[in-house]
Amino acid sequence: MANNKAIVLLSGGLDSATTLYYAVSKGYQCFCLIFDYAQRHKKEIRSAVKVAKRSGSKYKIIKLDLSGEGSALLDKKMRLSFRGGRGEKAIPSTYVPARNIVFLSIALSYAEVFKSRAIFIGANVIDYSGYPDCRPEFFKAFKKCAVLGTKSGTTGEKINIITPLIDFKKSEIIRLGKKLKVPYELTWSCYEGGDVPCGRCESCFYREKGFKESGLIDPLIENI
Amino acid sequence: MANNKAIVLLSGGLDSATTLYYAVSKGYQCFCLIFDYAQRHKKEIRSAVKVAKRSGSKYKIIKLDLSGEGSALLDKKMRLSFRGGRGEKAIPSTYVPARNIVFLSIALSYAEVFKSRAIFIGANVIDYSGYPDCRPEFFKAFKKCAVLGTKSGTTGEKINIITPLIDFKKSEIIRLGKKLKVPYELTWSCYEGGDVPCGRCESCFYREKGFKESGLIDPLIENI
Repeated sequence: MANNKAIVLLSGGLDSATTLYYAVSKGYQCFCLIFDYAQRHKKEIRSAVKVAKRSGSKYKIIKLDLSGEGSALLDKKMRLSFRGGRGEKAIPSTYVPARNIVFLSIALSYAEVFKSRAIFIGANVIDYSGYPDCRPEFFKAFKKCAVLGTKSGTTGEKINIITPLIDFKKSEIIRLGKKLKVPYELTWSCYEGGDVPCGRCESCFYREKGFKESGLIDPLIENI
Repeated sequence: MANNKAIVLLSGGLDSATTLYYAVSKGYQCFCLIFDYAQRHKKEIRSAVKVAKRSGSKYKIIKLDLSGEGSALLDKKMRLSFRGGRGEKAIPSTYVPARNIVFLSIALSYAEVFKSRAIFIGANVIDYSGYPDCRPEFFKAFKKCAVLGTKSGTTGEKINIITPLIDFKKSEIIRLGKKLKVPYELTWSCYEGGDVPCGRCESCFYREKGFKESGLIDPLIENI
């Protein structure tokens, strides 16, 4: 690869960890951006750091000052989305306003500085919670914006936004991760920051379903 | 107006100050976002705060962790662009990678939280330095991205990105500002953070040209 530098958005969950390991397996030299945006708990940030280190990649924690209002992921007074607690098509309370646009924009800025030609993000639209900024049409629109709004785009050195898991079921992500030796025991998906996953939030629901369907055991709860 | 709340991107320069006063004159209740992204100097941040206060608008300073490398506006070791020091069509050294995408994305997040239906940004393509993220086609692409990547866009409550100065010459901006009583004595355009404008950088060049062509006197240098 002529230029193998990539920016990877890393959250500490299993999708982004798998994405990082996928990028590494494809020969990319990855620089991980981990966002500290006043989430309900810091546990996922610590998980992200452990995953980045284990993969041998560099990382940076970026503090981000989003408004705490309006999202259950940022506001401890709000109720989290639980499975069945809302209509199938509604956007859950854990939606963080414009989160992926913000993350991708900052990744784009770093990509330009580092002369990376790729940004990896672990979004997927199958076993997910219905966030608008995880859909392929959003990423397509962002790519266009990135070309038009940057020096690199204008001079023809396009930065690709790569979503390797976009069409994967959670079980397929986990099977791919297993092959890539992703240390799932270091990841954290639960919206709560307890000692063990709560087992009730939507994120726990999809993780549990994914491991079950993949026929594998979640190392995070193996010994509970 | 049913909903008159707006987010205004405020830099401390004369374009964004004029944009703020324009939005206020149109009846918008403005909330200003002022970015502290490790610029060469803090003077423009202090200017932005003064302008926001004078206009009677609320504001928030957002600290933003962009990489310091690659732009003369962030890196004091790099040389600033001077008029004539580069080809007419080249993008100057003061370009900050993906800056407007990052600013607009964060504004979008705040707009969703505050249920604002408008984001104002004082970009213009006439007397400007050739930044790709100031062009109308970029704003058009961003609008699409904003619709597809947010809850509000998905539910039909679109957030408008308004660029009132996009086709204005600098002199026209200044004439409009004069009518709107923009306190230009509080603004700061110079890329350097000295006691008085350097008079040599590209930003000083356009400001000086604009005041000259408008037939008005710049209150900032009136008494030097």
